[in-house]
Amino acid sequence: MKTYYFDHAASSWPKPKEVVEAMSTCVLEYAANPGRGSHQMAVKASRTMFETRKQLAKLFHIANPNDISFSLNTTDALNLAIKGFIRENDHVICTSIEHNSVRRPLEYLRRTKQIEITYVQADREGKIDPAEVQKAFKANTRLFVCSHSSNLLGTIAPIEIIAEMCRAKGVRLLVDAAQTAGTVPIDVQAIGIDMLAFPGHKGLLGPQGTGGLYVHPDIELEPLIHGGTGSQSEAIDQPSVRPDRYESGTQNTPGLAGLNEGVKFILRETVEKIHHKEWMLTQRIMEGLLGMAGVEVLGPKLGENKTGIVSFRMNGIDASETAFILDQSFQIAVRAGFHCTPLGHETAGTTETGAVRASVGYFTNEEDVDHLIYAIGEIGKHYT
Amino acid sequence: MKTYYFDHAASSWPKPKEVVEAMSTCVLEYAANPGRGSHQMAVKASRTMFETRKQLAKLFHIANPNDISFSLNTTDALNLAIKGFIRENDHVICTSIEHNSVRRPLEYLRRTKQIEITYVQADREGKIDPAEVQKAFKANTRLFVCSHSSNLLGTIAPIEIIAEMCRAKGVRLLVDAAQTAGTVPIDVQAIGIDMLAFPGHKGLLGPQGTGGLYVHPDIELEPLIHGGTGSQSEAIDQPSVRPDRYESGTQNTPGLAGLNEGVKFILRETVEKIHHKEWMLTQRIMEGLLGMAGVEVLGPKLGENKTGIVSFRMNGIDASETAFILDQSFQIAVRAGFHCTPLGHETAGTTETGAVRASVGYFTNEEDVDHLIYAIGEIGKHYT
Repeated sequence: MKTYYFDHAASSWPKPKEVVEAMSTCVLEYAANPGRGSHQMAVKASRTMFETRKQLAKLFHIANPNDISFSLNTTDALNLAIKGFIRENDHVICTSIEHNSVRRPLEYLRRTKQIEITYVQADREGKIDPAEVQKAFKANTRLFVCSHSSNLLGTIAPIEIIAEMCRAKGVRLLVDAAQTAGTVPIDVQAIGIDMLAFPGHKGLLGPQGTGGLYVHPDIELEPLIHGGTGSQSEAIDQPSVRPDRYESGTQNTPGLAGLNEGVKFILRETVEKIHHKEWMLTQRIMEGLLGMAGVEVLGPKLGENKTGIVSFRMNGIDASETAFILDQSFQIAVRAGFHCTPLGHETAGTTETGAVRASVGYFTNEEDVDHLIYAIGEIGKHYT
Repeated sequence: MKTYYFDHAASSWPKPKEVVEAMSTCVLEYAANPGRGSHQMAVKASRTMFETRKQLAKLFHIANPNDISFSLNTTDALNLAIKGFIRENDHVICTSIEHNSVRRPLEYLRRTKQIEITYVQADREGKIDPAEVQKAFKANTRLFVCSHSSNLLGTIAPIEIIAEMCRAKGVRLLVDAAQTAGTVPIDVQAIGIDMLAFPGHKGLLGPQGTGGLYVHPDIELEPLIHGGTGSQSEAIDQPSVRPDRYESGTQNTPGLAGLNEGVKFILRETVEKIHHKEWMLTQRIMEGLLGMAGVEVLGPKLGENKTGIVSFRMNGIDASETAFILDQSFQIAVRAGFHCTPLGHETAGTTETGAVRASVGYFTNEEDVDHLIYAIGEIGKHYT
């Protein structure tokens, strides 16, 4: 039976067919350890990893692919950036739409390194006012951590303006691209992003278990993981050469082989085209829901720019129950609850109720959307 | 052309066919985000992860599967255990055969938390004398980190005796099972192992990008990674419930689906049978090499217990050159150099020369071994 998959913001599905083919080929033909041997299979594994780095560098306009290091997921990448950069008594700015992958590491550093944190308050639609950002800077501000897009509301942060302010103040900018890598154009050099954390398994259409961090060449992080790198084995400390410094132990070679194909797919289709397609689908969902009594759509208004997320709540029915009925009766996969962003829910005013999040991806089509609208309409009629 | 693969100590290859099938099925059919949604695909992903945990718990005799948390690799797991457990001014014991994945985190803590480290010296064959271990304990010793088997020499450490000493002294034992998980029997409860770090892609026959850490239920670690767990989203700190506490962000579901099949394969074949098979193959290699002039075999003597590793060096020819010729002229994949264990090489007395490591796996056969012996003989005749 067909699944109507509206959970792309958690993980994209399906993937381009080349992704699973590349993973299988890797495991079947060259599952040797990259960078850990000079034999042909190990060399092939290393080449695949470098090829993936090159495609990502092309996508994000990064000059040197070795400034990208791979990680298990975006959370790992954000932890490396945040814990590797911030020092005792630093002041850090972030926003009120951050995911727990930013909030929890920062709050951990508040407890252990006495850092100060300012959460710039977004409005209920998740919009950030540059004037509020400007007010947040202090003499000891060293880092701005900014979610590029709310994983609850789909609102896109004005990172170009924030980057300009950061540059003027000598503050470094870390962007969490969990919801935008592969679906919103990102030019690291033109925007002036100092660090970029991204997932492999969402907009980049690769498999789970992949992600990475770009670090500007003049930033030196304390590694989060110390271990073998296959290079400078005799040194007691991590090597300073990238990407080895931030990549200890065996990496997820089959996953990265798959990610390589995901990114190539995106480069062929273009991010611009993907973004437009996803945006059109969100507009169609919103148009469908806006006419329904008792349904409240969260986030940016119809016609405004956003990522492929439409969150909503329904009068008189719990978000989890809505998600359960969508799944059981309509074969529709959405996500209910708090989406690992209690901050986002505080911002949207949905802390008490939670919300249902429907998110689209490259392979979502209008028929899927119409089925979703129909199902929500039915729930409205029969359950509320 | 056939590759004679002797680099199982870096990564096993080939894998059982079920491994790649399970990975493909996961990506094609249920690549949703485990623990991040209640819809059927997410539930299936969660179930696969739990199934993998259960198989691992069975293999290692762990009472509660949720005491196992997954990681990108063994290095990640060791970093979590070491950095999450050790406090300022603690004394830690390890051995002179540790991999950089143990040495580098410990030396990092020496620089930043003023810890003391004692490296118990093994003999040239990698053997550890329990009397030396006994002498290493101090009043402030809190942790013993022990490589279960040298990744250079294949020597197996007497962890049963070390565990007994640790228990008597109230010291916790962390075992690095990088070279033994799946190839040497490990009973966490019977031996008294407090933490066990293991790779998924070596003896467990799973894909790269997988590994994990078992943590005894009465040990509470500070997480290395803070972030979203899909549970207790509203809490500012990590949830205390396992495995969530140590697993932030999206895990490598396809990799874990593959690992599940690898572990099931091992449980069917039995670790005992696999160990015996690998041991027989090492004896055959050693018998072949011991008769050759100018070839020095490192590690335990013929007839002694060990893992599937035979390291050697040849008079008058560099280890990397030997490996290169084996690869280019004989299609044999081995690993030369320092194997991320400068400590191991100091112990073996091979710091100046390096060594060639040939390592066998479940799918290695006698014909492969005979080809390896023939090739080394030819190199001895023509290149030295």
